[in-house]
Amino acid sequence: MKYGRVFNFSAGPAMMPEEVLEQIRDEMMNYQGSGMCVMEMSHRSKVFQDIFDEAKKDLRELMNIPDNYKILFIQGGATLQFSMIPMNLMKNGVADYIVTGNWSKKAAAEAKKFGKVNIVASSADKNFSYIPDCSDLPIDEDADYVYICENETIHGTTYQTLPNTKGKILVSDQSSMFLSRPCNVADYGLIYGGVQKNVGPAGLAIVIIREDLIRDDLDDKLPIYMNYKTHADNDSLYNTPNCWAIYCCGKVFKYLLKIGGLKAMDEINKDKAQVMYDFLDNSKMFSGTVEKKDRSLMNIPFVTESKELDAEVVAATKAAGYDNLKGHKTVGGLRASIYNAMPKEGVVSLVEFLKKFEAEHK
Amino acid sequence: MKYGRVFNFSAGPAMMPEEVLEQIRDEMMNYQGSGMCVMEMSHRSKVFQDIFDEAKKDLRELMNIPDNYKILFIQGGATLQFSMIPMNLMKNGVADYIVTGNWSKKAAAEAKKFGKVNIVASSADKNFSYIPDCSDLPIDEDADYVYICENETIHGTTYQTLPNTKGKILVSDQSSMFLSRPCNVADYGLIYGGVQKNVGPAGLAIVIIREDLIRDDLDDKLPIYMNYKTHADNDSLYNTPNCWAIYCCGKVFKYLLKIGGLKAMDEINKDKAQVMYDFLDNSKMFSGTVEKKDRSLMNIPFVTESKELDAEVVAATKAAGYDNLKGHKTVGGLRASIYNAMPKEGVVSLVEFLKKFEAEHK
Repeated sequence: MKYGRVFNFSAGPAMMPEEVLEQIRDEMMNYQGSGMCVMEMSHRSKVFQDIFDEAKKDLRELMNIPDNYKILFIQGGATLQFSMIPMNLMKNGVADYIVTGNWSKKAAAEAKKFGKVNIVASSADKNFSYIPDCSDLPIDEDADYVYICENETIHGTTYQTLPNTKGKILVSDQSSMFLSRPCNVADYGLIYGGVQKNVGPAGLAIVIIREDLIRDDLDDKLPIYMNYKTHADNDSLYNTPNCWAIYCCGKVFKYLLKIGGLKAMDEINKDKAQVMYDFLDNSKMFSGTVEKKDRSLMNIPFVTESKELDAEVVAATKAAGYDNLKGHKTVGGLRASIYNAMPKEGVVSLVEFLKKFEAEHK
Repeated sequence: MKYGRVFNFSAGPAMMPEEVLEQIRDEMMNYQGSGMCVMEMSHRSKVFQDIFDEAKKDLRELMNIPDNYKILFIQGGATLQFSMIPMNLMKNGVADYIVTGNWSKKAAAEAKKFGKVNIVASSADKNFSYIPDCSDLPIDEDADYVYICENETIHGTTYQTLPNTKGKILVSDQSSMFLSRPCNVADYGLIYGGVQKNVGPAGLAIVIIREDLIRDDLDDKLPIYMNYKTHADNDSLYNTPNCWAIYCCGKVFKYLLKIGGLKAMDEINKDKAQVMYDFLDNSKMFSGTVEKKDRSLMNIPFVTESKELDAEVVAATKAAGYDNLKGHKTVGGLRASIYNAMPKEGVVSLVEFLKKFEAEHK
C-alpha cells in the first residue's frame, strides 16, 4: 500500500480512508486559509462553527435523519452512554435489555445501577454466536425502552431484523456498524455510536435522539454533562467538544456522500465480507464462529481446530503485515474487523495469505 | 508567520507549537513505520501503548509528580470534572469553594447537587478582578476538600500563593495555566486541566490525583465512567481514550522538556506577559482590568473607555490578522490569551499594532 501502510484489521480504533487522511495532513498547518490548525481553533469561532454545521448537515443527509431527531456529539465513548441512557430515559425505572455479547451485557450491568433491568432475550447459551428470535419478547409493560447492541464487535453478530418492541422505544448501540449500511432512523428512539471503529478517531460518540425523549425535569438531578438536555440545548457546544474528532468525522461523512452514500457503502461491505465468508465456508482449517444468518459484515471471528494453531496464524499474519487479527481475549481465535475503510484488496490479500498458510500446513 | 499562520489569541482551544504540528503532519500517513496513522491504532496495541507510556513518563518528569499520585486521562473536559470531583471526594458531603470567576462559580454550582457547598471566599464584589486573601479562611471542619480555579480564563486572575486550607485537601482547576509554570504537586490532593488551552487539542482532561483519594466504596454508586477508580485501576484504558489527544499532548510534553521544562517555560511566559502589561500600564487608551498582584500570565483582559471603542479595536485587530481578541461576553472588552505556544513575537507585534491604533485615534 501507499506510504508503506498496512492492512489493519483492528476492532477499533481502525482504518480511515486514505484520501481523508491526506486531506487532514494537508490542512494541518493552515486549515483552508484560516491561518490555524483545526486543533487550535476556538470552538466559538465562525471557522469552527462552519466545520461543525457542515458535519451535522452531511450526517443528517447520509442517514436521512428526520427533523425531530437531534444529533449530539458527546465525549466519553459508549461507556458514558451506558450510564446516560438509563439516567435520562428511565422514567418508570424499568428497561428491557437484549444481551447478545459483551457490550450489551456491560450496558445492562451499568443500567442496573439506575433501575430495574429485565434481560428479555440472550444468546449467552451458545457463547453469543447468534441473535435470538426477537419477534415476540416478554416486553415489560413499564419498560421505558428496549436496548440492543446492533452489531457485537467481539462476537461478530448483527441484527438483520430489528426486535419487535411492542411499541416501546428502541435504543441501539451501533458503534461497530455506524454508517455501514442504510438505517431507518424513525425505527429508533435513540441511536448512538462511538466513532472510533467505523468513522474517525476515538474520543467522540454520536447520539441521535428523538426530541421528545429529552427531558426538562433532570437539571437538578443529573451531573450536568450526563443530561442530554445540556447537549441538546447548546447544540453540543455547552463546553468545548472534541473539535478534532468532529472535523475528521466530517471529512469521512463527505467521503461517504461522494462514493454514493450508505447504500453504496453497504454494497461494498457486503462484497468485501463475502470474500472472507466464502473462504471460511470452504476452508478445512478455518471456520467462522457465528450462525450464518446473523453474521456481521464488520467483525468476522474465526478459529482453527486448536488454540496453538490460532496463535501460530496470528503470528504469521502479523509478520506478513496483516495487523490486529488476534481475537478478543473473551472469545479467542482470530477476528478480522473489516470496517468501511478497509479496502477490498485488504480482504482479498488476507484470504490469499490464509489459503497459502492452509496449503502449507496440511 | 510560516505557512501563512496567524497570531491566535483565543482563550482555548489555542495555538500549539509549530514544530509539534509539523511532526504530527509528517507522521499522519504512517506513524514511525507502524504502517498507520495514530488515529487508526488499536488502543490495546503495543505501538499505542508506547506512545501512552511515554506521554505519562514525560508528564511525570515535567511536573515532577510524586509516585503516590496517579495520572489519569479522562474525556468530558473540565465540565465532567466539576461533577466527578464532588461525586468522588465528598465523603462527609461538604466542600469549601473559593469563587474567583465564572469557572469556579460553575464548579461550585455543580457541586451543590452532591452535597453542602460553602463559599469560603469570593471576589464577586469587584467583578472577579482580584484573588481574595486566602491566608485565614473559615474552612469547614467537615470539608472534604477546598476547591480553587487557579487561573480564571475569563477574568485573567492567577493565585500567586495557594490558599491556607488548614489541613484540608486542595483541589485545583489548572486548565488555563496547566504546564505554564513549575508546580509543587504535593501541595494538592487533585490537580486537573482540560488540555485544550495550554497543551493540545480539546477532548481530554488530565487529572493528577493522590492515590489515597481514590475510593473503593463507589463501584455500585457512581456511573462507571465517573468513578476515578475505573480510570486508575485500568491506567486510563478502561475504555478507548482520546488516543489522538494523548499523542498530541505527548509531543508537547517532549517539546517542553526540550526547551528546559516548566522553569524555562515560566521565564518565557513572564517575559511575554511583561510586554503586554508594560504596554497597558503606559497606555492612555487601554487599561488592564485586574489588580496588579493577581494578574495572569496567560489571559490578559483589557478595556478602552467605551464599548464602542472596544468593538472598533476588536474589528481592527481581526482585520490585521490578530485573531480572537474579543473579551468573553460576561466581561466584555478585549482579552489576549497568550498561552505557552504563543510566540513572543506575537505579543510584540500585537502591542505595536495597538500602539499605532492609539496614536491614530488620539
